[in-house]
Amino acid sequence: MDDLDILIQRIARLPGLGPRSAQRISLHLLKKKEQELVPLQLALAQVIEIVHTCPKCGAFTTEKDLCTICQDFKRDKAHLCVVEDMADLWAIERAHCFRGQYHILGGVLSALDGVGPEELHLAPLIMRCQEEAVEEVILALGATLEGQTTIHYIKAQLTPFSIRVSVLARGMPIGGEVDYLDEGTLNTAFQARLALED
Amino acid sequence: MDDLDILIQRIARLPGLGPRSAQRISLHLLKKKEQELVPLQLALAQVIEIVHTCPKCGAFTTEKDLCTICQDFKRDKAHLCVVEDMADLWAIERAHCFRGQYHILGGVLSALDGVGPEELHLAPLIMRCQEEAVEEVILALGATLEGQTTIHYIKAQLTPFSIRVSVLARGMPIGGEVDYLDEGTLNTAFQARLALED
Repeated sequence: MDDLDILIQRIARLPGLGPRSAQRISLHLLKKKEQELVPLQLALAQVIEIVHTCPKCGAFTTEKDLCTICQDFKRDKAHLCVVEDMADLWAIERAHCFRGQYHILGGVLSALDGVGPEELHLAPLIMRCQEEAVEEVILALGATLEGQTTIHYIKAQLTPFSIRVSVLARGMPIGGEVDYLDEGTLNTAFQARLALED
Repeated sequence: MDDLDILIQRIARLPGLGPRSAQRISLHLLKKKEQELVPLQLALAQVIEIVHTCPKCGAFTTEKDLCTICQDFKRDKAHLCVVEDMADLWAIERAHCFRGQYHILGGVLSALDGVGPEELHLAPLIMRCQEEAVEEVILALGATLEGQTTIHYIKAQLTPFSIRVSVLARGMPIGGEVDYLDEGTLNTAFQARLALED
């Protein structure tokens, strides 16, 4: 196997890609060696050298110490949003719906996958709640069995502190059509129906 | 913009990817730094250092001089398959339907995109037909307007030599259903219909 095959196999292992798309991508990179291949390799090398997890929130960062969000004094420190993963943080940042700080759990409790409380970034969360002036913890976890379990577990851990704990609303997604909703969502949306004011 | 954003943007530029998949891929790489990120960066660095085009067929290769196929003395030198691109070569190799050698054109003639004969790897093809004991040139180009134009142009160039020139058969794709075929294919398949022997 030559070095080109090694590269294609490496790319094919990436999420969402396979052998065909890896060949297409490799070919694209080879055709544009100076404009695409070299800059990509340099960007990877740079990230390898300086990426680390933010000692406060657990997010990946290429800043010197704390990540940009933890460093940003304009962000509201009273609201702490707990997410499973960096991808969730990015999704919330894209939506521009939250100006507080984050805490990355690094997973959710899952008996099936053998993820217990020790595997999660939980102790630092409790510590932040004790030490920082946190007024509300928003548990922005998935509306899945594992997400719910994790929500109940964290809620119990936070009970000793006088902190408001909230979860994201459940209901119809915006743009959703009733006949396409699954039964679970329809059920929740009915139970949590909102009275229209006059 | 930090280095992580630069990496995500670089990945998002790759064919078939976008900002979302680039984020997912970057996150995957960051989570598996030693197993995925570092090996990918090394594979890219290695390819950058040693990749070049085979001086004979025009394929990308990481071999010292000629590519593996041109070097392979077991491959039939009498049959030369002309393809537009490395991706076509890979597709034919995957199908295990050809044991001869290849010639990469690097494109097809296209008045719209301003690709004339000078832009293609054509002179080396004529030279190979003169110098090597080529008996048949298979023009494995697309059944598109540009592919057809290129086929006619190359056929004219090769007329002086006593070499058989062929193109890939046109007709129904295997597994194809009649009611899903486009009119062009149906037309061709009717015109080129095959008599069933008893």
